[in-house]
Amino acid sequence: MTDIQTTASYTDTELDADLRWWAAANYLTVAQIYLQDNVLLRKPLIPQNIKPRLLGHWGTSPALSMIYLQVNRLIKETDTDWLYITGPGHGGPALVASVYLEGTYSEIYPKISGDAEGVRRLCRQFSTPGGIPSHVSVQTPGSIHEGGELGYALIHAAGAAYDNPDLLVACVVGDGEAETGPLSGSWKIPAFLNAKRDGAVLPILQLNGYKISGPTVLGRSTDEEITEYLHGQGWDPVFVEGDDPNKVFPAFREALVDSYDKIREIQAAARADGGDGATDQHWPAIILRTPKGWTGPDKVDGKQIEGTHWAHQVPLSGVKTNPEHLKQLEGWLKSYKPDEIFDDDGVVVESITTLAPEGDKRMGSSPYANGGRLTRPLKIPAIEQYAIDVDTDQRGHIAFETTRVFGELMRDIYRADETPDHGGTFRLFCPDETASNRLQAVFEATDRCLQLPTIDLDDNLSKDGRVMEVLSEHLCEGWLEGYVLTGRHGVFATYEAFAMVSASMLIQHTKWLQHALDLPWREPVPSLNVLLTSTCWRNDHNGFSHQGPGLIDAVLPLSPGVARVWLPPDSNTLLSIADHCLRSRDHVNLIVVDKQPHLQYLTMEEANEQCAAGASIWEWASNETRDDEPDIVLAGAGDVPTQEILAAAQLIQEWLPYLRVRVVNVIDLMTLLPENDHPHGMSDERFDSLFTTDTHVVFAFHGYPRAIHQLLHGRSNPGRFHVRGFMEQGTTTTPFDMVVLNKVSRYHLVLEALRRSSRVAEKTGELQDYCHEQLARHHDYVREHFQDLPEIRDWTYS
Amino acid sequence: MTDIQTTASYTDTELDADLRWWAAANYLTVAQIYLQDNVLLRKPLIPQNIKPRLLGHWGTSPALSMIYLQVNRLIKETDTDWLYITGPGHGGPALVASVYLEGTYSEIYPKISGDAEGVRRLCRQFSTPGGIPSHVSVQTPGSIHEGGELGYALIHAAGAAYDNPDLLVACVVGDGEAETGPLSGSWKIPAFLNAKRDGAVLPILQLNGYKISGPTVLGRSTDEEITEYLHGQGWDPVFVEGDDPNKVFPAFREALVDSYDKIREIQAAARADGGDGATDQHWPAIILRTPKGWTGPDKVDGKQIEGTHWAHQVPLSGVKTNPEHLKQLEGWLKSYKPDEIFDDDGVVVESITTLAPEGDKRMGSSPYANGGRLTRPLKIPAIEQYAIDVDTDQRGHIAFETTRVFGELMRDIYRADETPDHGGTFRLFCPDETASNRLQAVFEATDRCLQLPTIDLDDNLSKDGRVMEVLSEHLCEGWLEGYVLTGRHGVFATYEAFAMVSASMLIQHTKWLQHALDLPWREPVPSLNVLLTSTCWRNDHNGFSHQGPGLIDAVLPLSPGVARVWLPPDSNTLLSIADHCLRSRDHVNLIVVDKQPHLQYLTMEEANEQCAAGASIWEWASNETRDDEPDIVLAGAGDVPTQEILAAAQLIQEWLPYLRVRVVNVIDLMTLLPENDHPHGMSDERFDSLFTTDTHVVFAFHGYPRAIHQLLHGRSNPGRFHVRGFMEQGTTTTPFDMVVLNKVSRYHLVLEALRRSSRVAEKTGELQDYCHEQLARHHDYVREHFQDLPEIRDWTYS
Repeated sequence: MTDIQTTASYTDTELDADLRWWAAANYLTVAQIYLQDNVLLRKPLIPQNIKPRLLGHWGTSPALSMIYLQVNRLIKETDTDWLYITGPGHGGPALVASVYLEGTYSEIYPKISGDAEGVRRLCRQFSTPGGIPSHVSVQTPGSIHEGGELGYALIHAAGAAYDNPDLLVACVVGDGEAETGPLSGSWKIPAFLNAKRDGAVLPILQLNGYKISGPTVLGRSTDEEITEYLHGQGWDPVFVEGDDPNKVFPAFREALVDSYDKIREIQAAARADGGDGATDQHWPAIILRTPKGWTGPDKVDGKQIEGTHWAHQVPLSGVKTNPEHLKQLEGWLKSYKPDEIFDDDGVVVESITTLAPEGDKRMGSSPYANGGRLTRPLKIPAIEQYAIDVDTDQRGHIAFETTRVFGELMRDIYRADETPDHGGTFRLFCPDETASNRLQAVFEATDRCLQLPTIDLDDNLSKDGRVMEVLSEHLCEGWLEGYVLTGRHGVFATYEAFAMVSASMLIQHTKWLQHALDLPWREPVPSLNVLLTSTCWRNDHNGFSHQGPGLIDAVLPLSPGVARVWLPPDSNTLLSIADHCLRSRDHVNLIVVDKQPHLQYLTMEEANEQCAAGASIWEWASNETRDDEPDIVLAGAGDVPTQEILAAAQLIQEWLPYLRVRVVNVIDLMTLLPENDHPHGMSDERFDSLFTTDTHVVFAFHGYPRAIHQLLHGRSNPGRFHVRGFMEQGTTTTPFDMVVLNKVSRYHLVLEALRRSSRVAEKTGELQDYCHEQLARHHDYVREHFQDLPEIRDWTYS
Repeated sequence: MTDIQTTASYTDTELDADLRWWAAANYLTVAQIYLQDNVLLRKPLIPQNIKPRLLGHWGTSPALSMIYLQVNRLIKETDTDWLYITGPGHGGPALVASVYLEGTYSEIYPKISGDAEGVRRLCRQFSTPGGIPSHVSVQTPGSIHEGGELGYALIHAAGAAYDNPDLLVACVVGDGEAETGPLSGSWKIPAFLNAKRDGAVLPILQLNGYKISGPTVLGRSTDEEITEYLHGQGWDPVFVEGDDPNKVFPAFREALVDSYDKIREIQAAARADGGDGATDQHWPAIILRTPKGWTGPDKVDGKQIEGTHWAHQVPLSGVKTNPEHLKQLEGWLKSYKPDEIFDDDGVVVESITTLAPEGDKRMGSSPYANGGRLTRPLKIPAIEQYAIDVDTDQRGHIAFETTRVFGELMRDIYRADETPDHGGTFRLFCPDETASNRLQAVFEATDRCLQLPTIDLDDNLSKDGRVMEVLSEHLCEGWLEGYVLTGRHGVFATYEAFAMVSASMLIQHTKWLQHALDLPWREPVPSLNVLLTSTCWRNDHNGFSHQGPGLIDAVLPLSPGVARVWLPPDSNTLLSIADHCLRSRDHVNLIVVDKQPHLQYLTMEEANEQCAAGASIWEWASNETRDDEPDIVLAGAGDVPTQEILAAAQLIQEWLPYLRVRVVNVIDLMTLLPENDHPHGMSDERFDSLFTTDTHVVFAFHGYPRAIHQLLHGRSNPGRFHVRGFMEQGTTTTPFDMVVLNKVSRYHLVLEALRRSSRVAEKTGELQDYCHEQLARHHDYVREHFQDLPEIRDWTYS
């Protein structure tokens, strides 16, 4: 273990006081797990005091409480702002206990009051039906990090620290979660965190050695191995190890104070006049080796518990029925001396509560953990200046890389948002694809960010850059989550197929927001905006592994209060939606649009109208008269499907002008849901006004066809909707071949329309023949031009 | 850079020969990217020879080819079996070139023959419509690793090495992919790879410094940092760096031979009599720093290309129209001296081809890369011995932790499969939840696997253990992928909600199998079996973040030839499905069933019948007569929904015996699809025989309700299906409260049934009142018992 030099005072009195806070936190932790009554232990413990079902995680809790109180002491000494991120989230009762002791909990939840009745309720609610989960959750004041799906602690910590130069993030990493891919990939913070513009992240790797039932890889690694592992990634780890609080507390205290001093030293040097925030120093990190279930039962029924995986959850089981265990629990609880923690009214004694910082300096009350309190509206330039000039007499006559305008908009947001006295509240996160995704205009305003050595040949790269490119969807998604949950704005732009890599994170963020919406004390935060581009229809050379629109299906069933899916057909609609999404709060916006040159249809004014409407009749593409019902409705959602639908409509109108064709475009996918199912959902009246009640609808969709069918349940005659979309038929081929393979080409759509139309008469056969000819011609073309590759190609057309 | 000591001979003649192979590989790589004709450069290069669209990745290719030929030389010298995993998969043309040079390509694809016409077709097909993708894919002989979604190279390498003691895996890791979470998390192989029982993985970290457009973190890290990073994780890295092939080749040769010797030394020591395979040695790893686009154009239009990100894809653009670029391309191609590579017939000269190993020792022909060739059928014990004894007169009267029997079955598979002369071909992969998921019977047969130090207190843990527990869904999923693609069998058991973490990997594996099915030379491999347990309905204390059945939605749209979703309602059906899945080939089986005690319904015989049928009428729970159509159909899919459906049926039959109720159970979700859409899909006749054509159906489903609606499109009157399921209403609460919150409780189902039934008469009102009373009573119970937590609870019932 590395020697720790004493640099910080820590008197015996202070240590004693901290140990008393710790006893209180541990007492409240055990009480939450076990007790539903007699929670102050004013009477002998009886089985009726015990909860009917014991569920909770003791193992990691005491260390979490020790870290919390130590940071508290530092806050009081330095008057600094800290955020506490609990990687081992199942130590929920420890965090609830700490936030209760500091007073925040009762302020936010008045019925969990600061007296005997409040303590009873505090215990009663924990991991109990109707109460709070056993892990740190959105209900926990001071948290921006759900303790369920593991692996994102350091990612969220970094996201919180970006552009928050005054913030310090104490990020506890569990040795279980340290085995996950995302956590392993997130140690590279020093390569991206700028010491001048950003705050600091202090990782505290809590090695209690075990997961649920097995040891951990880092827990069984030597100090030397861990030092190498972290030092190689830009950290300077300090080890604190032991099981005697009288030794561990001072050692941790010193490690923490040293780390703080080192952070301030790095920042001071990097922030000196003219500095670009670069540092060649390693950032401090603390490795804390303490027993799992520290201060809990050493042995139960002769079996070693403390320091083993058996301490992970509830060390003493069957307490209601096993008198010996009940006795042991009582002794365990009494070891924390509850009579010295609570006064006669059950109020925590002042000598303990006074150890907490005050007001918003308390980590449970930090505005950084309730980001809406800090949110400044984004300065969004008028989008009209980026609009594509569309001639309404010649719609669809120019092609343009649709996403390009979004890059220009973000460029000017970067410029407008960053002022001399404020470092900016907007960032773009992207796995090294900013230019590939045609968003490179942002580099006119700022660079890619990298804190490692740069060379002259580098392309828009600097230590001061604020475009976050790292080849990890997990980091991009999670950094943005941490960024918006602390009140800032941003966009995650990524290839559509690989957005599935971080789908689970997006789902968890949606769940977080869903429950946050029900907590009035949580202020609205900027939405999480995800741009999916390089879509399935246009991965011309990458082929099948790059073709997957499935994130839409994953998002559709999520909370209607949060989830939004947008399918802009062209640049101006993309601008309108981007503007809307960047102004919105508490949403998860999925924007799906391709980056290749696509036809442009709508003026900016029309785009704004139609994005607001969500779904509209495109009269200029229709030939119905308003007096009659159409013979067929052609609907499109997404850029390529819209193009094919329009081409189909044109073919029908050219060949069969007597047929009344209506073209509908859906930009906001959620409008298809019933109005009771989603706030954007259309009423039946409005739905019928677009799609009629019984006319057949040929619907070309960007994603999997049945995603549309699921939305249509409950509408009038949903069987009349004939949806074409991505049928998981992909390969390396031309854009046109892709729509043919998936049977969503203009010719397929015309044939489907003619099959379904209520009125087909003269020249129908000719048009059908024409369509079949075109498809046959394509087939011949494929056979002729792809003939060199029969073994590989045959299966595609088999 | 670490000094490399010469230990392996490498004569100048051998170096020259290797450089000639390399020239051939590089020539074929450039030719694939650029040329569609005149591919042997027998005539001056003209614009018509150039492909119309230039798409491909040059940057990483030369290094991949160098590694390939060096491994070839080692194979010939040592007569060993190697698998080549291409992390930087976009170097597809390099792998295709190498496999072509060794002769495998023409054997598998005869029209890509070993002559001038074959070379033309080889070039023509690359990254061309109808051809092969630009990255390593399922079409590439010798690959088990798709080069699209990055991050899984080392994971697949480890999966391939487990239980293949004779196999050596050369795993090239790109410095781009090294930034991903999964790759970062996968360096921990030394903690799990047993030197006796398993093969070896040799990581070759290819640092060319750049991703698409920015530098990489490891590319900008020092040798010392990288050494620390890898050494701390059990590797002993050796650096090879340079841009002069005459120096790099010998240096790499030495590093490779040294690594091989070191691997053999470790294995010999660990495999000595009585050894448990443990080693305290660090495994070798090679760090190769060579220029991106090595041997390509140094500068283009005065701009530096080689060694920068500009060499990532196509270094010379606009070749068709820019005569200077055309000239430069011609010079570049000629620098490889094509006339010395090909004879007059365009056949690669023997002095080059003779450098390749022969037969199955060629990496493109390795049976390990076509795992079906090595697959031994699993010895699956008769499942009847694990069956739950169900009294058909008292169905649903005993509760049992449903998954427990699967643990017993796997225990005996472990036992039967591992014989004295064979190390076993079955493994369970699980993120530290084997016991939590009630599968702990496997520990009677084997232990958890860990190669790090163990202690006496450890629980079923040993170096020799073959249950793979690591807290990473990515590693579990990917290790299993590598394991089955090399022809072995296994199960990935995980919490349902967190299965979304590795959803993208499962999707990519499904895509791989979909295209593999169309390649006759790829032999069928054992299916990927995923057990989802700890489901959304029974995460009593974990709450909302642990409640997410969305993986079903992600799998439904995937290839019908591959994807399967199973919802066994009890233990015996789980046994039957497990048996089926473990015998199946080329499928991805999702099995969704909870681990908590659940009611048991079917005898083993019935279970087998009904699993085979996929969906059945449960006559014992119905009271219709076969002569009449039912008044209402109650359908269930999944354990908890089935329980509620049965309770609803019982209530209706008790109160309204005149009502003809039919109960249907769906085990195989894909049966609901039309028969043309999925091989398990039911014909309309069979569908109607279960669900009638017009009777209302109240359907209780395990997952999101609209997942069912999407499957029902096209059936008779799908609007009559009233699906209840998980509505994203979750929290910490009781199982019964969960079904109430999501409106899928027995009372909700009865009320829905009565609302929809075609015949309701006497006592209907009473039953409705009863149901409302029960729900009101529950509501009162909640209000009373959860009254302590109003601030937190109110939102749930608002």
